[in-house]
Amino acid sequence: MPQTRYDVLAIGNAIVDVISETTDDFIASEALTKGGMQLIDAARARALYDAMGPAREISGGSGANTLAGLATLGQKCAFIGQIADDQLGEVFAHDIRATGIDFDVPPLGKEPPTARCLILVTLDAQRTMNTFLGASQYLAAGLIDKDLIASAAILYLEGYLWDPEEPRAAMRAAIEHAKAAGRKVAFTLSDAFVIDRHRADFLSLMDDGLIDILFANEVEICSLQQDEDFESAVTASAAKVPLLIVTRGEHGAIAVQNEQRFAVPAEHAERLIDTTGAGDLFAAGVLSGLSQGRPIADCLKMGAICAAEIISHYGARPEADIKALVEKGLSAA
Amino acid sequence: MPQTRYDVLAIGNAIVDVISETTDDFIASEALTKGGMQLIDAARARALYDAMGPAREISGGSGANTLAGLATLGQKCAFIGQIADDQLGEVFAHDIRATGIDFDVPPLGKEPPTARCLILVTLDAQRTMNTFLGASQYLAAGLIDKDLIASAAILYLEGYLWDPEEPRAAMRAAIEHAKAAGRKVAFTLSDAFVIDRHRADFLSLMDDGLIDILFANEVEICSLQQDEDFESAVTASAAKVPLLIVTRGEHGAIAVQNEQRFAVPAEHAERLIDTTGAGDLFAAGVLSGLSQGRPIADCLKMGAICAAEIISHYGARPEADIKALVEKGLSAA
Repeated sequence: MPQTRYDVLAIGNAIVDVISETTDDFIASEALTKGGMQLIDAARARALYDAMGPAREISGGSGANTLAGLATLGQKCAFIGQIADDQLGEVFAHDIRATGIDFDVPPLGKEPPTARCLILVTLDAQRTMNTFLGASQYLAAGLIDKDLIASAAILYLEGYLWDPEEPRAAMRAAIEHAKAAGRKVAFTLSDAFVIDRHRADFLSLMDDGLIDILFANEVEICSLQQDEDFESAVTASAAKVPLLIVTRGEHGAIAVQNEQRFAVPAEHAERLIDTTGAGDLFAAGVLSGLSQGRPIADCLKMGAICAAEIISHYGARPEADIKALVEKGLSAA
Repeated sequence: MPQTRYDVLAIGNAIVDVISETTDDFIASEALTKGGMQLIDAARARALYDAMGPAREISGGSGANTLAGLATLGQKCAFIGQIADDQLGEVFAHDIRATGIDFDVPPLGKEPPTARCLILVTLDAQRTMNTFLGASQYLAAGLIDKDLIASAAILYLEGYLWDPEEPRAAMRAAIEHAKAAGRKVAFTLSDAFVIDRHRADFLSLMDDGLIDILFANEVEICSLQQDEDFESAVTASAAKVPLLIVTRGEHGAIAVQNEQRFAVPAEHAERLIDTTGAGDLFAAGVLSGLSQGRPIADCLKMGAICAAEIISHYGARPEADIKALVEKGLSAA
């Protein structure tokens, strides 16, 4: 493979998370689906924000979280996502650049505002996400630069961003450029409801051999294949992608590569506070391991270590020195 | 005392904290005074933000933090402070209202923006604060409503807000109204540099019998009296106020009332992460105890419990159920 400037380039939603503790009663009274992600409009975002408790704001976005993990682990990364010209946009841009990630997409304008995700965390550390996409859904396909895509060894795409039309076109263009340049394409399925809306697209990307690495959790892989049986859903999916990674929460994760199966148990988390970003950081650990040319078993272990760190505090960006944690974890193994 | 609507009404800066971990080297390279608070202008705020690491945003402001503690402990509170019509202003207003505090000051306009404090936290949990006051310094004296001031048993004033001219006039008017209505005035000295700029004002407020409860830490009480000897600085100050509270970090705190001295050790903190807001939450515990008519020793204990909670995580607003912690702590004593 020719020399690349970046290990991973991600296209994802540019979101600031607004994180608040809540009760199961509140989740029920607002008729939310616990553990899910739903898209909300500006009016609903205002009403829900008014009803929810005091919050903390921490940059988020699934793909951006994964990159933050990757950059902290030492990989060279770039991000493509759309912010607005407002304070939350400044926060998002600051945090991603301060993590060492290249981010050059200019703000779109004052309106619609930068995306935010109202995240309600219950005592069991489960997160219920309510996303107002704002500017993020207007990521234009014209922003996808062929040379930039070719400059990254792995293109990482966020399933969440398949919903809005413009970013979907941007991602299709990016896949084309990546494949033409001989780069790998990694894709995360993101959410069962997203899969319900775009199952045919996702399966056809896989059938066409456009996905090299597929990330999913148990619910998502079953939803993708519309198969309640986990094992057969995994087998069917693994047949279509060179590398499949499926996270299983407290049961760890598995990988399937060339019909060979690998598994890793979940790492012990110091505290269980907020599961937001567990999958994103698992992907970060795996992609970091792959970028470093490590064996799949090590990649899984790195994912498990990063996921355990992220669920030990509020927010989906690493707080602890995950690079040191990974080095320690791999040397102990 | 006639019936009051609020236990405590505070006038303070309306600030969103931007909190980032850093190193002693960074503090040195930016020529900051570790542990201090300095006021910075918009250009400096931008340059420092660009240089610092990824951050989390959590509503702050010394007086507002104290009220958040008080409201969480069950007291009825109201806040007066100035935000702008922007996203950080919405965040501040949301968080304070969601904590159950009445806050009715309308946003000023788009510019200057809502105040922010860039807080750099080193590994020793020390915080170095860089405050861009923005809209907060334009709190107008005209906002001080006589009836509102009379409706609170205690008026709580933040020394930090003595710097800008308009809020200083607002606080002077508020003191006058509070005294005329027979209410108590509590004042926190906030910072040694603030005291350097306004020592004569603060001493004259005390000489004129306008301060009923004075909060300070060791450095501040010594600075106020320009006396390196802690004991004599305490004695001189206590002679001028009915109740003096001095926090001493890991050595706990003392109170002096009618020449009687009380002391409390520091409470054990689960983890020591970020000392931002330790004094603010100590004041919350004390004022809550006073509002509930508890003896001074209990008030100090409540302050120590609240301070221990706030230093165990990032941000100066309570995360744990401090009401339950206080009840447990007082019943164990």
